[in-house]
Amino acid sequence: MQKPFPSTILYGADYNPEQWPESVWQEDMRLMKVARVNIVTINVFSWALLELAPDEYTFGQLDRIMEMLAEHGIAADLATATATPPTWMSRMYPDMWPVTRDGKRLSYGSRQHYCPNSHDYRRKAGALVRRLAERYREHPALAMWHVNNEYGDHVKACYCDGCAVAFRRWLMARYTWLPELNDAWSTSFWSQRYFDWEDVMPPRLTPAGNNPGQMLDYQRFMSDSLLECYRLEANVLREVTPAIPITTNFIVAFKPVDYFSWARHIDVISFDLYPRNTTPPWENAFRHDLMRSLKNGQPHLVMEQTPGQLNWMEQNPHKRPGRIRLQSLQAVAHGADGVLYFQWRQSQGGAEKFHSAIVPHEGSERGRIFRQAAQPGAELERIAPDVVGSRIRAEVAIVMDWHNWWAVEYLPGPSDRLRYLEQVKRWYAALHGLNVAIDIVAPEHDLSQYRVVIAPLLYMLKAGVAQNLERYVTAGGTLLTTFFSGIVDEHDRVTLGGYPGELRKLLGIYVEEFDPWTEGMSNEVIIADEPLRGKYACDLWGEVVHLEGARALGVFARDYYAHGPALTVNRSGEGRAYYVATQVSDELASKLARMLCQQAGVELLMEVAEGVEVTRRARSDGRKVYFILNHNDSPAPVTLPQGRFTSLLDGLDFSEQLVIAGRDALILLEK
Amino acid sequence: MQKPFPSTILYGADYNPEQWPESVWQEDMRLMKVARVNIVTINVFSWALLELAPDEYTFGQLDRIMEMLAEHGIAADLATATATPPTWMSRMYPDMWPVTRDGKRLSYGSRQHYCPNSHDYRRKAGALVRRLAERYREHPALAMWHVNNEYGDHVKACYCDGCAVAFRRWLMARYTWLPELNDAWSTSFWSQRYFDWEDVMPPRLTPAGNNPGQMLDYQRFMSDSLLECYRLEANVLREVTPAIPITTNFIVAFKPVDYFSWARHIDVISFDLYPRNTTPPWENAFRHDLMRSLKNGQPHLVMEQTPGQLNWMEQNPHKRPGRIRLQSLQAVAHGADGVLYFQWRQSQGGAEKFHSAIVPHEGSERGRIFRQAAQPGAELERIAPDVVGSRIRAEVAIVMDWHNWWAVEYLPGPSDRLRYLEQVKRWYAALHGLNVAIDIVAPEHDLSQYRVVIAPLLYMLKAGVAQNLERYVTAGGTLLTTFFSGIVDEHDRVTLGGYPGELRKLLGIYVEEFDPWTEGMSNEVIIADEPLRGKYACDLWGEVVHLEGARALGVFARDYYAHGPALTVNRSGEGRAYYVATQVSDELASKLARMLCQQAGVELLMEVAEGVEVTRRARSDGRKVYFILNHNDSPAPVTLPQGRFTSLLDGLDFSEQLVIAGRDALILLEK
Amino acid sequence: MQKPFPSTILYGADYNPEQWPESVWQEDMRLMKVARVNIVTINVFSWALLELAPDEYTFGQLDRIMEMLAEHGIAADLATATATPPTWMSRMYPDMWPVTRDGKRLSYGSRQHYCPNSHDYRRKAGALVRRLAERYREHPALAMWHVNNEYGDHVKACYCDGCAVAFRRWLMARYTWLPELNDAWSTSFWSQRYFDWEDVMPPRLTPAGNNPGQMLDYQRFMSDSLLECYRLEANVLREVTPAIPITTNFIVAFKPVDYFSWARHIDVISFDLYPRNTTPPWENAFRHDLMRSLKNGQPHLVMEQTPGQLNWMEQNPHKRPGRIRLQSLQAVAHGADGVLYFQWRQSQGGAEKFHSAIVPHEGSERGRIFRQAAQPGAELERIAPDVVGSRIRAEVAIVMDWHNWWAVEYLPGPSDRLRYLEQVKRWYAALHGLNVAIDIVAPEHDLSQYRVVIAPLLYMLKAGVAQNLERYVTAGGTLLTTFFSGIVDEHDRVTLGGYPGELRKLLGIYVEEFDPWTEGMSNEVIIADEPLRGKYACDLWGEVVHLEGARALGVFARDYYAHGPALTVNRSGEGRAYYVATQVSDELASKLARMLCQQAGVELLMEVAEGVEVTRRARSDGRKVYFILNHNDSPAPVTLPQGRFTSLLDGLDFSEQLVIAGRDALILLEK
Repeated sequence: MQKPFPSTILYGADYNPEQWPESVWQEDMRLMKVARVNIVTINVFSWALLELAPDEYTFGQLDRIMEMLAEHGIAADLATATATPPTWMSRMYPDMWPVTRDGKRLSYGSRQHYCPNSHDYRRKAGALVRRLAERYREHPALAMWHVNNEYGDHVKACYCDGCAVAFRRWLMARYTWLPELNDAWSTSFWSQRYFDWEDVMPPRLTPAGNNPGQMLDYQRFMSDSLLECYRLEANVLREVTPAIPITTNFIVAFKPVDYFSWARHIDVISFDLYPRNTTPPWENAFRHDLMRSLKNGQPHLVMEQTPGQLNWMEQNPHKRPGRIRLQSLQAVAHGADGVLYFQWRQSQGGAEKFHSAIVPHEGSERGRIFRQAAQPGAELERIAPDVVGSRIRAEVAIVMDWHNWWAVEYLPGPSDRLRYLEQVKRWYAALHGLNVAIDIVAPEHDLSQYRVVIAPLLYMLKAGVAQNLERYVTAGGTLLTTFFSGIVDEHDRVTLGGYPGELRKLLGIYVEEFDPWTEGMSNEVIIADEPLRGKYACDLWGEVVHLEGARALGVFARDYYAHGPALTVNRSGEGRAYYVATQVSDELASKLARMLCQQAGVELLMEVAEGVEVTRRARSDGRKVYFILNHNDSPAPVTLPQGRFTSLLDGLDFSEQLVIAGRDALILLEK
Repeated sequence: MQKPFPSTILYGADYNPEQWPESVWQEDMRLMKVARVNIVTINVFSWALLELAPDEYTFGQLDRIMEMLAEHGIAADLATATATPPTWMSRMYPDMWPVTRDGKRLSYGSRQHYCPNSHDYRRKAGALVRRLAERYREHPALAMWHVNNEYGDHVKACYCDGCAVAFRRWLMARYTWLPELNDAWSTSFWSQRYFDWEDVMPPRLTPAGNNPGQMLDYQRFMSDSLLECYRLEANVLREVTPAIPITTNFIVAFKPVDYFSWARHIDVISFDLYPRNTTPPWENAFRHDLMRSLKNGQPHLVMEQTPGQLNWMEQNPHKRPGRIRLQSLQAVAHGADGVLYFQWRQSQGGAEKFHSAIVPHEGSERGRIFRQAAQPGAELERIAPDVVGSRIRAEVAIVMDWHNWWAVEYLPGPSDRLRYLEQVKRWYAALHGLNVAIDIVAPEHDLSQYRVVIAPLLYMLKAGVAQNLERYVTAGGTLLTTFFSGIVDEHDRVTLGGYPGELRKLLGIYVEEFDPWTEGMSNEVIIADEPLRGKYACDLWGEVVHLEGARALGVFARDYYAHGPALTVNRSGEGRAYYVATQVSDELASKLARMLCQQAGVELLMEVAEGVEVTRRARSDGRKVYFILNHNDSPAPVTLPQGRFTSLLDGLDFSEQLVIAGRDALILLEK
Repeated sequence: MQKPFPSTILYGADYNPEQWPESVWQEDMRLMKVARVNIVTINVFSWALLELAPDEYTFGQLDRIMEMLAEHGIAADLATATATPPTWMSRMYPDMWPVTRDGKRLSYGSRQHYCPNSHDYRRKAGALVRRLAERYREHPALAMWHVNNEYGDHVKACYCDGCAVAFRRWLMARYTWLPELNDAWSTSFWSQRYFDWEDVMPPRLTPAGNNPGQMLDYQRFMSDSLLECYRLEANVLREVTPAIPITTNFIVAFKPVDYFSWARHIDVISFDLYPRNTTPPWENAFRHDLMRSLKNGQPHLVMEQTPGQLNWMEQNPHKRPGRIRLQSLQAVAHGADGVLYFQWRQSQGGAEKFHSAIVPHEGSERGRIFRQAAQPGAELERIAPDVVGSRIRAEVAIVMDWHNWWAVEYLPGPSDRLRYLEQVKRWYAALHGLNVAIDIVAPEHDLSQYRVVIAPLLYMLKAGVAQNLERYVTAGGTLLTTFFSGIVDEHDRVTLGGYPGELRKLLGIYVEEFDPWTEGMSNEVIIADEPLRGKYACDLWGEVVHLEGARALGVFARDYYAHGPALTVNRSGEGRAYYVATQVSDELASKLARMLCQQAGVELLMEVAEGVEVTRRARSDGRKVYFILNHNDSPAPVTLPQGRFTSLLDGLDFSEQLVIAGRDALILLEK
């Protein structure tokens, strides 16, 4: 297969020279050198420039772009250009037009206007990719394939008649015969039974709530449909250029697409990182940790981030000075081996002309934005030799499951305030504050490498998941799960016999009632024993819990289940299983996370002030690289672990105590 | 016709055994006995299980269910199963699909996906009902027919081409010739004249506001279309099983369907009672009083209430302990002779799996929900012999009119803050606080039995209504009506010559201007004389009122109509007609209600603390049963009327003073 | 061409006798005389009454109406009745039905239900207009043609297939060949290139943001489409009745229609004036000044205002006493020579029956509304001989540009808080407070007559606009423009090389970054020198400004561009160009406006208390008429300019000092 990739820290941007006269290209090359760019993503939106009419291809301009890059030693992340079909193609093939759930056909003239199940779209996309692969297979600039762009971003699902046919085919493969589908979807309810595959429809607009099983399978089907589009392209590329790694840019924790199921088909995980100015640093960290975990710690890439202001938020203030540098270094601190921007040169027209770029409308390298984009370019070049090849090793994991996400957020009750990702992120934030390395894993993932696993709101237990968790705990692991877990099977059918279903024994509890609170309702958790002793606010959800072997660490303070368990622990085999029956305050979540890590012997990297983030990458030679990022505006003292360290950014030596400036970063290699 | 029904207090639930293996059914029978269930509603969503293909019926499972019920002495409220057509039927007959006002076709896969004017729907529904009636006509379990389910709940109106044809036919019957329709709809306005019946359309999406006459008639037409569906089924049932009473479950004060016009076609009024946890007790009382009044005091049924949490609110907290029992007893206190739950056993899958049931997912009778559902079962069984046959007798009535509701809430101005039902309920609440019995009647109803009648916001006076009110007052009645009354005729055309039109003489006033206030605007009503002497807040609406025979009891405090009448009374014949020209505070409404009742000699049942509700049912032997319900959490003292009483729940005797516990109920039979 | 119009001050109303039996008409004539009505607008919604079937016309009723008006000496503003096609016509010609952006067809049964590009609509409208013109060409009542009604009010844009064809034709005329369109729309972005005119579509619903160039041109195209409808009618009328002036009623500052481009095709500008009760007086003044400026100061008309409550706001309180008179006199004070109401007699039915009218539902002249409508009728009759023919002369202008409006409010970023009209109105308000006469002009307008020109938020500079502004300043003018100006050309493509593009030299600044603030963000402007010395709040927007010749008058107080220029001035030739880099507080805007006017030698009419408005009309004999309007509830002292004055309303003489009552008006003629 392909050689290890990348061999240095990648630094670059989306580059759209087709928007500019060729006279500008040479200036681009000069400026890229100034900014230390070593890779650019090209050809993302070029289908209309490559195929002018059915099967009438023209590659002259792309040839010149590839030549120029090769000449200047800049690698090409070559996009397959399939993300947006040309206007003539949309008009020629009406089956390409996506249809919304309420029956509206989406027109072209924007982007991503294709139905992922359109035969014509797939045929034409495949043909284009083959041409590209064959033409540039030996090109020296070709470093990576960039398939399509942000799958599913705008067309999260299509409900056209072609999708109805494809959905039936997908269901036949999944259920073999119709009674099984009727059973999975509980169609004895509301007279919904199917007698013929032809009767099955996408979950279009209906008078009342749609069948939850049908909704869930449709989300699975649409994620798989997009994956089929990806694989169709990837298969061509692997056939023609087996040595070239393949990526497609993800949209982070993006609900419509189950990235866990995609990851094994992708060589290099890359994603687009677009925080708001108000996004807390731990949330970016979460995004990196998720992306890195998709391929078990293999380095990922930031495929897009903005060098200045965005254009798609309600208001788009500029990034304040220093932020972009810190954001870039944080990527590497969390295991990324590359950071690219969207985009190189700011567009003069079109729907993104007010999205900032490294080269602004003004056109020179003199401004703040260019300079602050160029700085990490130089820094990453400097640290690359000491960092590339090193890996993050996590002892703590958070379970995340797209199927659970889909199910929990299309529930007929009990609460529209349940946001799965928010629950996952709450516990991530609690752990992140401890400066431990964290993986984000699927519930069926082998958990044996972790000391602590937190699986928030695990409403749906797919087949085998309960056993996986049990195996993990009995072997000595520490598990924490939360309210409304273990409720349903993978078809969103309730596990009968008492909540939390298959987890009842492992957790040693029986939940008689769950009580989703309205906006004004709340309660408190009272804990008698150290280290958690105290009274803590909780909200969102309460439960009537009975102990069946577990011990109550905390109880509810009020309401008809006052004195009932709110926080329990159950010993099982060599391990412990915790259950939190409500949404606890950040304070209690943090304390709990710390207690679990300490009990389980998880290494906390450093004790630092709030707002200072510490990560560690381990090299194959055993030496460690510490990343210390001060997200505060003011300086902070740092106590280093024992030993002596070299600062990779400036070559200075450090040990014991130091002070890190506000909005600054230190990258320290163990001596 | 049929024998008196019911002969005891009904207690039961919706029962959907088709969702469960037959092995569970026997356990259901056992548990029903524990809970004192004597009736279940079955077959509501079974069409897909009964008709597997066009005219291919199968009744085996239903036979077994009916047999089992008969064996266990549980009555069947047998549903006609027409509320949700099978999937194959929807696909086969595209004219069944409802269409929204803006042209969206609603798909199947949920429930109630039929256009009420679909010929195919009606033909297939009629055929099924005939089969059911003929098959079970002699069945010992058959106690009542349950036609369809919650008519109009999800498809409040359909705008398909079939409905357009039916609407024209309905209009032809109503108006005979087109000039009459043009006149009724005021089509000389905005160039809207019709020259051909074929030009008339449902009020679909238009560039500006729709014609109000067309909108109003379309609401009448849709209510009638649903009624035609009901009558089509009822006619078959009456023909085949003339002795079996017929019901269909109403949705309480449900705007799309004019229940007054339906009631005479129905044998037993039943309805679904789904208050929020925050719904005040008087609002449930209002619902019962409306349902009871539909057939002049004949006992009604609660067809559905929830034993615990709901699933269709934004958040669905559990019902707090004691609530369900109190809610069940309140039903009987207001004249109901039966309380059923939705549903018996909680579904494992589908769109309502988180709607609670008497038997929870856990499956046993051990939990709180089962026990609190079983308690009123036993209690109702105990009191039934002393209560069945007794009736509520009201001396006070509130006028409510669906046509007025439709008209007032599709107005081109003057205020979008006018909510008709809210106005009706405000005055209901004021009266309810006095613990008097209240009927809710249509404006054309014979009012001679009442001492006080309140007709809030009677914007529309249908033909004869003004005369009915006049007749009532001149014969000695006390009438109160409020702002913006008497404005239009039944076609929503203004009665010229000065507001309040046909009520001008009866009320002795002329309203020169009405002034709908914006959110921030308010005023005060100043009253000089006792018992109302004082200054009271008012909001929503003001008027410039001139006296034409009436006397001003209260005047506005501010604005350009300061010192102008705000509350007037006019003597007319033997009675009095009051007018309130604004929305007065709850305090003034309560005082007014009390003053009117006292002046008119209405009997106030008991003086009790706030939150304690008292009602009375009179038996044919003249003895009275008092229901005392303490909706407060804390105990309250109660002073009984003269005489001695037996408590039907526990057999104890009471007289003079007693204390009722928090959230408790007393049912006292006069000795 | 036509004779000067009007020769007196017009006073009247929309009159719809077709809604009433003819027996009411004579009473109308009597009451019109009481109210001093001298003109009525008739026939606006009469198409259905004039054309009963294809080409079957009937004019009997209209003949009788015209006769009656002529008999009573009341002029007819005769509408062409094309604003709402008859029902049969809509059914017969499906191409007439408008289609929304998301594909919904709009039905008839309301009003304005036609696509402006429908061939059938245009053909039928033209035929009707020719019949009307030929029939009434010599009629003595005919005083003015009133084409259609409120163009674009409800159908702001249509997206049907007919519009697609017309759009392509419009584009071919604009761009000649396709590469030019591709260039203008920047279609190299997002693969949007067009290869065939047939591929171009209206900007219908798409998965992501539409192409901004396409959106902008579609707004131009729709404004032009409506103008074509108008011109089609106007051409017929000019051909048949060349002496009769033509108007159509505008909707004030109405975004969909570029009134600057319409004005030269219209003889008399008229518009509908519907302020809320909370609309400040200066906003009405703005509306008049815009309308008057459309034809360079030629008198305009208020075609519709309400005599009392409206019906289309959420809530519609009555107009408080005195308001309507003041509003009517304010119209004349700002250059109008006529005020008409909607409508004469309040409709009994239909969608506007709760819109007040001069004659209310009660039907007599006794009420407040009639009387307060009649009062200005008498007053305008009295002042007319001294006022007609006089003109407003402005030394100050505000630039407003519909194309800029369209562009700025369909931006892909940077802020959804940018409301162009709001920015224009903020600066209007600042100037209005000084009691100077203000014109509202297009950016390409000859500016040489003005001493001060303010061009807020001039994001788009169409070809020649920058040169026009430069010419104006270098010749001695004072220009002020604000943040985010000079950014793009007329195709919404960024002017490269540094903001503010073509204005960079004139303003002497370079804007490196613009920073659109989120809701919570703000800053302050610090000014060191008099007369502005102080610290002022600012919000919405900040910028990083570099001086290139300009001088910084004010700087930002905080954030990373603290001490950077916030307010600059640049001398250029004989004049000065100011730039405001943020949205300053009302206080600073007012002070700035005053400073500019004083520096430039603009005459401030009078110094009066806040809430008192002063305007001046100059007669051809050189004498001036002052309008002093006290919008406060309390009296205010006024110091007159030198000289002696006659009050036209009551004939009294004044000089030096006087006191004006609350909500009163004085109209003073120089002796």
